[in-house]
Amino acid sequence: MSQSVDSDVSVVRTYIRNHRAAFLDDLVEWLRIPSVSAQPEHAPDVRRSADWLAAKLKETGFPTAEVWETPGAPAVFAEWPAADADAPTVLVYGHHDVQPAALADGWDTEPFEPVIRGNRLHARGAADDKGQVFFHTLGVRAHLAATGRTAPAVHLKMLIEGEEESGSPNFRALVEVHAERLAADAVVVSDTGMWAEDTPTVCTGMRGLAECEIRLHGPDQDIHSGSFGGAVPNPATEIARLVAALHDEHARVTIPGFYDGIAELTERERELFAELPFDEERWLRTARSTAAHGETGHTTLERVWARPTAEVNGIGGGYQGAGSKTVIPSSAMVKLSFRLVAGQDPDHIRKAVTAWAAERVPAGIRHEITFSGSTRPCLTPLDHPALRSLVRAMGRAFEQPVRYTREGGSGPAADLQEVLGAPVLFLGISVPSDGWHAPNEKVELDLLLKGVETSAYLWGELARGPREAH
Amino acid sequence: MSQSVDSDVSVVRTYIRNHRAAFLDDLVEWLRIPSVSAQPEHAPDVRRSADWLAAKLKETGFPTAEVWETPGAPAVFAEWPAADADAPTVLVYGHHDVQPAALADGWDTEPFEPVIRGNRLHARGAADDKGQVFFHTLGVRAHLAATGRTAPAVHLKMLIEGEEESGSPNFRALVEVHAERLAADAVVVSDTGMWAEDTPTVCTGMRGLAECEIRLHGPDQDIHSGSFGGAVPNPATEIARLVAALHDEHARVTIPGFYDGIAELTERERELFAELPFDEERWLRTARSTAAHGETGHTTLERVWARPTAEVNGIGGGYQGAGSKTVIPSSAMVKLSFRLVAGQDPDHIRKAVTAWAAERVPAGIRHEITFSGSTRPCLTPLDHPALRSLVRAMGRAFEQPVRYTREGGSGPAADLQEVLGAPVLFLGISVPSDGWHAPNEKVELDLLLKGVETSAYLWGELARGPREAH
Repeated sequence: MSQSVDSDVSVVRTYIRNHRAAFLDDLVEWLRIPSVSAQPEHAPDVRRSADWLAAKLKETGFPTAEVWETPGAPAVFAEWPAADADAPTVLVYGHHDVQPAALADGWDTEPFEPVIRGNRLHARGAADDKGQVFFHTLGVRAHLAATGRTAPAVHLKMLIEGEEESGSPNFRALVEVHAERLAADAVVVSDTGMWAEDTPTVCTGMRGLAECEIRLHGPDQDIHSGSFGGAVPNPATEIARLVAALHDEHARVTIPGFYDGIAELTERERELFAELPFDEERWLRTARSTAAHGETGHTTLERVWARPTAEVNGIGGGYQGAGSKTVIPSSAMVKLSFRLVAGQDPDHIRKAVTAWAAERVPAGIRHEITFSGSTRPCLTPLDHPALRSLVRAMGRAFEQPVRYTREGGSGPAADLQEVLGAPVLFLGISVPSDGWHAPNEKVELDLLLKGVETSAYLWGELARGPREAH
Repeated sequence: MSQSVDSDVSVVRTYIRNHRAAFLDDLVEWLRIPSVSAQPEHAPDVRRSADWLAAKLKETGFPTAEVWETPGAPAVFAEWPAADADAPTVLVYGHHDVQPAALADGWDTEPFEPVIRGNRLHARGAADDKGQVFFHTLGVRAHLAATGRTAPAVHLKMLIEGEEESGSPNFRALVEVHAERLAADAVVVSDTGMWAEDTPTVCTGMRGLAECEIRLHGPDQDIHSGSFGGAVPNPATEIARLVAALHDEHARVTIPGFYDGIAELTERERELFAELPFDEERWLRTARSTAAHGETGHTTLERVWARPTAEVNGIGGGYQGAGSKTVIPSSAMVKLSFRLVAGQDPDHIRKAVTAWAAERVPAGIRHEITFSGSTRPCLTPLDHPALRSLVRAMGRAFEQPVRYTREGGSGPAADLQEVLGAPVLFLGISVPSDGWHAPNEKVELDLLLKGVETSAYLWGELARGPREAH
């Protein structure tokens, strides 16, 4: 029996409408689990989140749903073979861990007690990334309902990791160990966003990431700034000098070798960026900032999507309490993150940063540099057939032309691209106001359901397309 | 009847020897009172210490000895007029409160149960500052015994405050309110030390202090360093730039006007510093540091005693916990303290720092600057007659040439100098190994008795000298 790969739009929409309430109830239940991978005290919650998801994927219909151990937090793997053995294989990637969050950070309500206000569901992880992982569960069932299938039109796999917010330190090893079971013709990453509520877009690439903490040690305990001030090196002053030396007057990173090998934007790519309805004032509001600042010779979009960065995520040393304490602190530290673009290699960046820091630390200061997990940049060409399939699925769901963006953030997509040798597609419905990593994170419910709908169309589109062209 | 102002050395020494045991018994009794001003639970002990001292000063012979209230802990004031109405007036300053101390901090014995081991009296406050206040009680009686007087050769006043270890928050106001009763031709501060056991020195000045906190605000909440990194100003990066801009490559402070009006060291002063038996390796061990660093063209002693500084006491912003958090922080701050030398005015420094910071903060960053209490620098010229008197008194007690030091720290001496318009002399017999603020604080008994002896000679020396020259 030959089955259609095209899902009827009205059947899909009716199915989604009928299952919306139960879908949201399930998502809310999942969001209640504070799966914060960065905080050791939440390790049991990250595990509970993995168990919850594996059970839910089985309930969805995946014949296989397993919790995969890593040296850190567990991932979830699920697999649902197509009826047709020749169908292409698609791997969906997302993550079930979330950023730290506490009411005291400025949340209006408890971050792990989800609330729906109007069209918005507020909770840590609502958009990043539980909501966007979860829309596939209803998407695949709508796909089955609309095509009359009992199994998806593609061999469908899901890999939902538990350490993305901690820099995915074990992800690459996990993918390498399980490369055979993860083998796919295309990877669909649902951990990004789109341009705006009214401008559906697909993302074609993400920046990579290298992170480090540099700690400087001066006196072996805090010393009196009167008795000794002016005559010994101060590690807090030195950490500041190190940070100040990161950029030149054009806001370019000064670390020797930092820009080695990067893929400069083509004219076509710069044009596509420039075609987006970019309003800098509005963008600044999203950035909660009052002025743009960045590398000379590039637009704001180019700076966040296609240029590498060196940002301070945290700096600290000495007395930070109320009032004053006249000490020269014993130590000071900075947490740096480097966003990388296609052509940059995290290993090369580590070496460059290490050499640069060693060069700059003065006598009397001992330094330690610790790198945490890194992520490679990735980029899918605009004319790739799998990307064309995604654009068609999304266009049908949104009933609008789909434009192209990139993502300034980073994800382990690049490891999947590299280890599995498969192109990476980004299907995300989050919008910039969703407040990733910030207080009052939310997801727009109508967009979440457009995500469900895109997922419902995508498997048929990919079944038709990418495999032939791969 | 004309009385001598010179005390016979052998009479003084015999008197001290005969009264040594009772003097130490009294001091031990005072040291048993845990007058820790920083700990509210010890407020009754600080009061008990004040009452004890006032009673003891009356017993010593002071006709007037009063407890003076402040909004915080009480001070003690005592006055003993000279027989000669034309005699100069001298005010002795010290403090009766002590630093916190507990056996658990690493003391070999209970900090408030004084023990004498060989030449050392161990107790919290033994050197800082009860021992050094108390030596004046035996000193003035030895002075009377050796000169055959019934009243000191100078109008003698004592002001012993109770909040020095808490930053003297009410001291200036106390001095201003009682300025008339405190009026003096010279102030003797007994709350410092000397170079070493075998190197008697007088301190000729202390650095002043101005403190501020600068806070920079960027995005109005933490934002994602992937989504926005590279395109908005980062307050943690900017605070680092501000700090890095504080000094030039010669470790000179770059704030315009910072060095305005400062008294540069004379050749004679530099020579006197250079004559001290300074061992940089040993000094570095005291500084718990492995290398010296400071303003080009100055020695370590010049840097800590006679050059102004800008030191970071604390810096902070963004995520400082375990692991990483990829944010651009909403704000960052630095706590700075500036040590000031003679000629620098804290108000001028405040204005200079304020203008400098405002100038450097870039678009998109809002800044706040808050100053806390400041202390003026003080310095008594080497040829000041009162200083000559102190050097003669000390030289006679120690039977050695007296050398000159300064103090890198700051203290309320400058308030006395400024409000009372009197030169400040520093008579201290503590040595660096006494462990101020540290476990096992002690005073060397033979040096303590040299303090008594110096005090015994000082009143006569001052009666001869300073008033005419003042």
